[in-house]
Amino acid sequence: MTDEQASGREQAVTDEVLASFGGTADPRLREIMQSLVGHLHAFARDVRLTQREWETAIGFLTRTGHITDDRRQEFILLSDVLGLSMLTVAINEPEAPGATESTVFGPFFVDGAPEIPLGGDIARGAPGTPCHVSGHVRSVDGTPIAGAWLDVWEADEDGFYDVQYPGDRTAGRGRLRSGPDGEYRFWSVLPAPYPIPHDGPVGDLLAAAGRGPMRPAHLHFKVTAPGQRTLITHIFVAGDPHLDHDAVFGVKDGLIVEAEHHTTGPAPDGTHPEGTWTSMHFDLVLAPS
Amino acid sequence: MTDEQASGREQAVTDEVLASFGGTADPRLREIMQSLVGHLHAFARDVRLTQREWETAIGFLTRTGHITDDRRQEFILLSDVLGLSMLTVAINEPEAPGATESTVFGPFFVDGAPEIPLGGDIARGAPGTPCHVSGHVRSVDGTPIAGAWLDVWEADEDGFYDVQYPGDRTAGRGRLRSGPDGEYRFWSVLPAPYPIPHDGPVGDLLAAAGRGPMRPAHLHFKVTAPGQRTLITHIFVAGDPHLDHDAVFGVKDGLIVEAEHHTTGPAPDGTHPEGTWTSMHFDLVLAPS
Ligand SMILES: [Fe+2]
Ligand SMILES: [Fe+2]
Repeated sequence: MTDEQASGREQAVTDEVLASFGGTADPRLREIMQSLVGHLHAFARDVRLTQREWETAIGFLTRTGHITDDRRQEFILLSDVLGLSMLTVAINEPEAPGATESTVFGPFFVDGAPEIPLGGDIARGAPGTPCHVSGHVRSVDGTPIAGAWLDVWEADEDGFYDVQYPGDRTAGRGRLRSGPDGEYRFWSVLPAPYPIPHDGPVGDLLAAAGRGPMRPAHLHFKVTAPGQRTLITHIFVAGDPHLDHDAVFGVKDGLIVEAEHHTTGPAPDGTHPEGTWTSMHFDLVLAPS
Repeated sequence: MTDEQASGREQAVTDEVLASFGGTADPRLREIMQSLVGHLHAFARDVRLTQREWETAIGFLTRTGHITDDRRQEFILLSDVLGLSMLTVAINEPEAPGATESTVFGPFFVDGAPEIPLGGDIARGAPGTPCHVSGHVRSVDGTPIAGAWLDVWEADEDGFYDVQYPGDRTAGRGRLRSGPDGEYRFWSVLPAPYPIPHDGPVGDLLAAAGRGPMRPAHLHFKVTAPGQRTLITHIFVAGDPHLDHDAVFGVKDGLIVEAEHHTTGPAPDGTHPEGTWTSMHFDLVLAPS
């Protein structure tokens, strides 16, 4: 058989599969499935996928499915380490010059976190150095946005979110509203770098690729306000050694913030914390919806 | 933000992910992962994948993983209905003019099926019209291959393989060796068309695409002989109404065989079956390994 015949035989398979999706009633599903088939087949042909490699892939996906449960989502991790999550963020980023950039949502958000007053403390006993976080919420034209809802969540100094501990403790997360001038402020702990769960198939893939599982220290924000696009982002702590190799590719230069270290008070809210404390300042600029 | 800036931002994500796999020690794994990332990202960009669609995909894969167990492999079904299984067969087809073509292996093979003598019966009680199957095993230069091992398996007239029934019954499968002149022959039942399992996520996908779950009637062969490439194939029954829309794209013209119907004996082995019986004749030509 010539190369040309082999290529024709392979293309015939692809053409038949593409045609089989031609009758899909929903035009968007049809577009997605035909594009998926085209790219998936092009991948298999490009690498000349062997039967044994195909079996390895089936086994990998099976293990990924079997380790996924209510508390662990290995398919999201897989999407994250393949950069698909971050690419999806980039594709859907609004065209709004000056707006704060988005990054990955991650698997550790919890709906209905406890509400705290402006200036309150989300740490709730999470271990770590106190960190005062403040800034303003505004629209791209500079208008302050009062009453925006801010959901914030973070890992403690040991690199764990509350939901990663046994039990139902809520710590290192909370909700608050921006004040009359769009200002926000709250106490938390200085976030720490942490590894994504890497004792499953995604961890095996990272190890085989010589990649680490670490994410640089960050604090998550989800900010909603009427008439504005919901902002899903992080702020990253400047100087973190993992900023240039985030396992999930979430870092953007504009999201890196200096954490100032203080040994004397008073803090911005007039209190005098005991021992060392830190502060970060970051303005959140929302795109119109 | 201009289209060009958006495109640059998306390409930057892809470039960063490709670079992250640059340190993969195994060069073949590096090639596969970088190609996969390139094609996966191109897909997401081509369709402008939304966040909600990404979530739907994560949910689909999660359901696919959770329905997969020791008796059901939904990821193989998914690969089958996306034509990836058949494309992988095409990619790995040997360049041996005259050799019998390959097709999908399928999920119903069982290792260690019962051995039968030349001319024996693999039905073992599987319901259906008796079918005498015969032919010769030979190499592409026409040399008969004696002592080749033939594994054969099939669905019964109700469209089920033995392993799809509760219990451990073995029926509709067996192993035999070709005779001194490469000849083979055995009794079985005439295979019937059957639906692939379609009460899970793959079935939902087929329904949304307006595709049916049926496979045309076929008998599976796995043929091994020293110095020859193992042949994985089917013979399909001519005239089956599903030949032009096999759910897994396995049909090849050269594998379609007439099933002759008989109401009088004697059968090719000299016996006189009661009632209607059928026969199929097919030569198995092995490529050199
Ligand atoms: Fe996080
Ligand atoms: Fe089958």
